Amino acid sequence: MDQPPREISIPTLADVARRAAVSTATVSRCLNSPDQVGKKTRERVMQAVADLGYAPNFGARALAAKHTNTFGAIIPTMENSVFARGIQAFQEELGRHGKTLLIASSAYQEALEEEQVRALVARGADALLLIGFHRDPKLYEFLKSRSVPCLIAWSYDEQLKQTAIGFDNAGAMAALAKLVFQQGHRHVACITAPIASNDRARDRVLGVQRAMKAAGLNPKDLHLTQTPYGIENGETALRKTLAEAPETTAVMCVNDVLAIGALRAAKELGLRVPQDISITGFDDIEIAMLAEPALTTVHVPHHEMGRRAAGMLIQMVKHTEPVQSVELPTDIRLRQSLGPAAS
Amino acid sequence: MDQPPREISIPTLADVARRAAVSTATVSRCLNSPDQVGKKTRERVMQAVADLGYAPNFGARALAAKHTNTFGAIIPTMENSVFARGIQAFQEELGRHGKTLLIASSAYQEALEEEQVRALVARGADALLLIGFHRDPKLYEFLKSRSVPCLIAWSYDEQLKQTAIGFDNAGAMAALAKLVFQQGHRHVACITAPIASNDRARDRVLGVQRAMKAAGLNPKDLHLTQTPYGIENGETALRKTLAEAPETTAVMCVNDVLAIGALRAAKELGLRVPQDISITGFDDIEIAMLAEPALTTVHVPHHEMGRRAAGMLIQMVKHTEPVQSVELPTDIRLRQSLGPAAS
Repeated sequence: MDQPPREISIPTLADVARRAAVSTATVSRCLNSPDQVGKKTRERVMQAVADLGYAPNFGARALAAKHTNTFGAIIPTMENSVFARGIQAFQEELGRHGKTLLIASSAYQEALEEEQVRALVARGADALLLIGFHRDPKLYEFLKSRSVPCLIAWSYDEQLKQTAIGFDNAGAMAALAKLVFQQGHRHVACITAPIASNDRARDRVLGVQRAMKAAGLNPKDLHLTQTPYGIENGETALRKTLAEAPETTAVMCVNDVLAIGALRAAKELGLRVPQDISITGFDDIEIAMLAEPALTTVHVPHHEMGRRAAGMLIQMVKHTEPVQSVELPTDIRLRQSLGPAAS
Repeated sequence: MDQPPREISIPTLADVARRAAVSTATVSRCLNSPDQVGKKTRERVMQAVADLGYAPNFGARALAAKHTNTFGAIIPTMENSVFARGIQAFQEELGRHGKTLLIASSAYQEALEEEQVRALVARGADALLLIGFHRDPKLYEFLKSRSVPCLIAWSYDEQLKQTAIGFDNAGAMAALAKLVFQQGHRHVACITAPIASNDRARDRVLGVQRAMKAAGLNPKDLHLTQTPYGIENGETALRKTLAEAPETTAVMCVNDVLAIGALRAAKELGLRVPQDISITGFDDIEIAMLAEPALTTVHVPHHEMGRRAAGMLIQMVKHTEPVQSVELPTDIRLRQSLGPAAS
């Protein structure tokens, strides 16, 4: 048996092929689909691999040198700090690993998000953090074709193949709705962001309906108002809800921003919260606690999600081992905006 | 006189030099510093320039083709939406011109901002929006050396040479302080972000001191508490202020976030706002109006500033004509958190 030659340069696939007297395609097959290659050829190739000290991940290392150490994140909005805390933790953890974060804000517009994905890839982003699963499958294919790993945050769904870190939006909202029904509420309305392009909002509405069913109510009776994100839109939505369904005693909003708007509208209408009407949110952003009365809401582990997302995405860029999706627990913050149903 | 030759390719500096029988350096000098070249040579070179139809901005046009249509913005924080509204307007206006915006958040850290500037330039940003003037002059030189135009926002100072769109932070705060003194307050304290690396905060404190002088008070008597940005820090700062200067009847905060924290601390201490203590802010972010009592503050024209910043920066990239700095007016929003001094 020959001694391994003293190579100065890193051995290539072609070196292995030459040494084993086979084509590079055969070497590649031996490494990737060994059962498609005859035993004798395979042994000769693997011996050459061993002799030369060839390692397929030399290629990965060469690729690594091309990394820009710039990561991208696209969030739906910069307003009201909904994503600020999570993204800040994401950035801090990336910073500890020498990565710089560039952020884009899609204003909840799918077409704009797509443009921003393409811009970040064109500008050399090593990897992307995206919020929620819902987007054109072609965009996922585009990222795959460019070898840019992408991690989904703020959502978790074991049915979907995208790697994600998030929480069970439907389950968390169902847990809060259960408490609402336990307080005697039978006429519940929901104020939501448009559900067609927002899987988080859609799942939260489904959560309310699931809890209705469990409480012996008909999920079809849920009064639903869809409105774009924003405090003023939450105000308008509450007025609309109460005009259409005056029997409502509790309004569950799919996020804190809409809930803060609903709180304001209730006060303007002379309604006491929670004596006359209960209002709940989702996210537990800073203003949830500052509101008067303070908002009962679902607490999302923003900081942990952001920090762990960074670690996962760094692993995904390294390609060392498959990265498993992570489901984080949420919990309910019971404050003053939820009370017993007015009799 | 020869007819201009029919050039297919765009004439270069070397073509001009060959035609005029001089060196390219001489052509360059004729174009940039004509008074350093003898009259005869200059005339010969300028004739060659005319004959060939050479235009120095052919180079600029070639450069233009290299534009990525990606603009960068670096903001000090994503929290509490201080910059969200302005940046959203900036992005919308850029979008109307086919530009994509990438954002970085420096967490008020100078070193991190510098890294982000370099990352955005390395990733091909055509131009940058930066907040405030204060940064290492080398960073401005770096941007100049890379021909990346940079526009300063949220500050205006005619003394400084950087192109900017912003407002007179000192003047705006002095106008608010004047109203505070008119309400009979004589013991005023100021809660500020660290002023060493934040020119907006520093100028706002100077504004309070300027108004003190005008009101016949000694600016040195201003009680000053410096604390990093954050609602909780505002709470702690108010407690510290009142422990050190219990005679204080009005606390002027250099931003709304610190003021919201101060409001909370006042309530926790059992103080009525404004009967026992007046509190003011700066920025007029969304929570200023949501606070109870609603916050008296300086309204910053976030939307107009962001929109016009986009137009200015697009002009700066085009190099067509010099772009003048813009000073925007601010105004005071008198709400419930400012009242007459407790007697």
